[in-house]
Amino acid sequence: MDVKRLGIIGTGLIGASVGLAAKRVGVESVVGYDFSEPARETAKDRGAVDEIFAAEDELLAAGVDLVVVAVPVLALQTTLSNILDGDWECAVTDVGSTKANLAAAFRDPRFVGGHPVTGSEAHGPEHATADLFDGATWFLTPTTHSDAKRYRLVHGFVSALGATPVAVDPDAHDRLVAITSHLPHALANVLVNQAGAGRIEGHDPLAAAGGSLRDMTRVAGANPRIWVDIFLENAGPLQESLAEHRRRIEQLEGALSARDAGFLGRWIGEASGNRRRMLGGAYPDAGELQRLRVHVPDRPGVLAGITQALGAERINIEDFELHHVSPDRGGTLTLLVGGAEQAERAASLLEAQGYGVVVSPVLADE
Amino acid sequence: MDVKRLGIIGTGLIGASVGLAAKRVGVESVVGYDFSEPARETAKDRGAVDEIFAAEDELLAAGVDLVVVAVPVLALQTTLSNILDGDWECAVTDVGSTKANLAAAFRDPRFVGGHPVTGSEAHGPEHATADLFDGATWFLTPTTHSDAKRYRLVHGFVSALGATPVAVDPDAHDRLVAITSHLPHALANVLVNQAGAGRIEGHDPLAAAGGSLRDMTRVAGANPRIWVDIFLENAGPLQESLAEHRRRIEQLEGALSARDAGFLGRWIGEASGNRRRMLGGAYPDAGELQRLRVHVPDRPGVLAGITQALGAERINIEDFELHHVSPDRGGTLTLLVGGAEQAERAASLLEAQGYGVVVSPVLADE
Repeated sequence: MDVKRLGIIGTGLIGASVGLAAKRVGVESVVGYDFSEPARETAKDRGAVDEIFAAEDELLAAGVDLVVVAVPVLALQTTLSNILDGDWECAVTDVGSTKANLAAAFRDPRFVGGHPVTGSEAHGPEHATADLFDGATWFLTPTTHSDAKRYRLVHGFVSALGATPVAVDPDAHDRLVAITSHLPHALANVLVNQAGAGRIEGHDPLAAAGGSLRDMTRVAGANPRIWVDIFLENAGPLQESLAEHRRRIEQLEGALSARDAGFLGRWIGEASGNRRRMLGGAYPDAGELQRLRVHVPDRPGVLAGITQALGAERINIEDFELHHVSPDRGGTLTLLVGGAEQAERAASLLEAQGYGVVVSPVLADE
Repeated sequence: MDVKRLGIIGTGLIGASVGLAAKRVGVESVVGYDFSEPARETAKDRGAVDEIFAAEDELLAAGVDLVVVAVPVLALQTTLSNILDGDWECAVTDVGSTKANLAAAFRDPRFVGGHPVTGSEAHGPEHATADLFDGATWFLTPTTHSDAKRYRLVHGFVSALGATPVAVDPDAHDRLVAITSHLPHALANVLVNQAGAGRIEGHDPLAAAGGSLRDMTRVAGANPRIWVDIFLENAGPLQESLAEHRRRIEQLEGALSARDAGFLGRWIGEASGNRRRMLGGAYPDAGELQRLRVHVPDRPGVLAGITQALGAERINIEDFELHHVSPDRGGTLTLLVGGAEQAERAASLLEAQGYGVVVSPVLADE
């Protein structure tokens, strides 16, 4: 059974992107509903839905194979109740970032919880794109109550959109995202607030911030309208992660107190191994990766010159970062390439353009 | 008084880069010494020094205006003692990443502590470059014992190399770097080790890592030969930062327990304001910055195509990041540009090339 008629409730960024992606892979009919009239109009104008309704029940009465509920976290329970209280036969899934609460509330054969991992840098249907889910992990949390046929339907639909469905127990899902997303977000806020809390003998630590503090606070201050709810919805698993984090900080404080160089060496080594494992999925030969650091001026055309020169020599750039330092000082360009031979060639090319280049292995040395 | 004859003790990455940068700005003569014969040879071969000595005293006896001591943190005290115990007239500075210990140990008019902030991704004179210090903050920690003339000499020298000298009290320096560098590094290790500590119902959290976890653990596992010593040398201020961090984590746990949405909203708002302040130095119009997110395939030439198209339209890219997801899935490209008008033009250009683009303001929404 394939999805021929799709319903989307909540046509914001995620909902409208689901619609665009579904149209891209040939779903026959996409119908939508949103609480907000401008969101309804934009979704229709952008072609994310073929038809838009002004009421949820009209959408359901139109007859669909699958309903994707893409409303804000706080509205999920009510919306799902409204749908599942009816006797519609369609499969129902959602895109909320916590899953245990919904699995407990909706022990219904028609319901299969879901969570596409796409980041949350934007919102609104005007930012929707058909390729938002390409390559993204899309968690699915079927329970013993979920009907197998409907689970297969959702699984197939998510795959068709370009995402990778990963089935996981709802509680495990919430603990996974607590540690991989909510804890890092929380620590980013804690860290930037600690660094910004006051001057040290007249010096603002934020003004002296180096690359590590910037990297680690990139997600700090993320949209409070979204994140307050996410933190609260996943408060339990997040609190567990924070308590474990605190325990690990105490252990480190103890090692520093005892001047325990052995502990610190093992601890850094463990971090290096874990980082290697994390990168292993993205870069099959992570051990071979080389980093090139280049200081570049703040001038249009610099990036194009560098990427053209490397592209012409068939040097495949794995990662590429330009971080701006200031208008006067330019920025730092970091490139990752695979293997020492490619790194040497890249460094020679850039040196020939007059840049100074520092090359180092990614995993052994940084 | 300018530096005409420069001595460098320890010709590794930093020492040899000081030599190359000094030659670039016309210092008449640079002489060096290193404990290691290969390091001596490489520094000489690369032109970082005009003359290399096999003993420290030979270098000092040759007569220099300034000695830059660029030996590993653990060898600093001994090396500085050896020099300052003699009756050489030259100014003496160092490049160690902690300063209070040295200021306390060497109450000598000839000594002015220093610390160039350059990152530590590589080591060895083979990676040295003349532009390593361009635009970098270079902390100087003169004390009441430091001779004003020699302080001015060091200050002028550091400026001439392209760095920005920032004078700071030695204790304040160590607290500043604890919070802006050593705490973030420590948290990166703690976080990746917590995420890598075990599977959650068969799922490896590191395999499910999203962008925030990757950003926040970029410096995890950094070179233990360097970082164990840095953590131990700055153990006191780092422990204070860790204890304060723990206190802030507890406060957050309390707010989550109490389901205090008001606290969370204010806390995220504070983080947003602090991040804006941090970025203010790098981007004078940080509030205008727009982020573009683009999903791109893993294929040579993609970057060149994009940067050329934007360059041709005179769109000035402030930050540029390509993060690889996997060979099958390609990667995510993130661009920062100034102002909504430039962002619109960039998005149109990329959409015309067939890419889906998500645009959002950097500070208000992410």
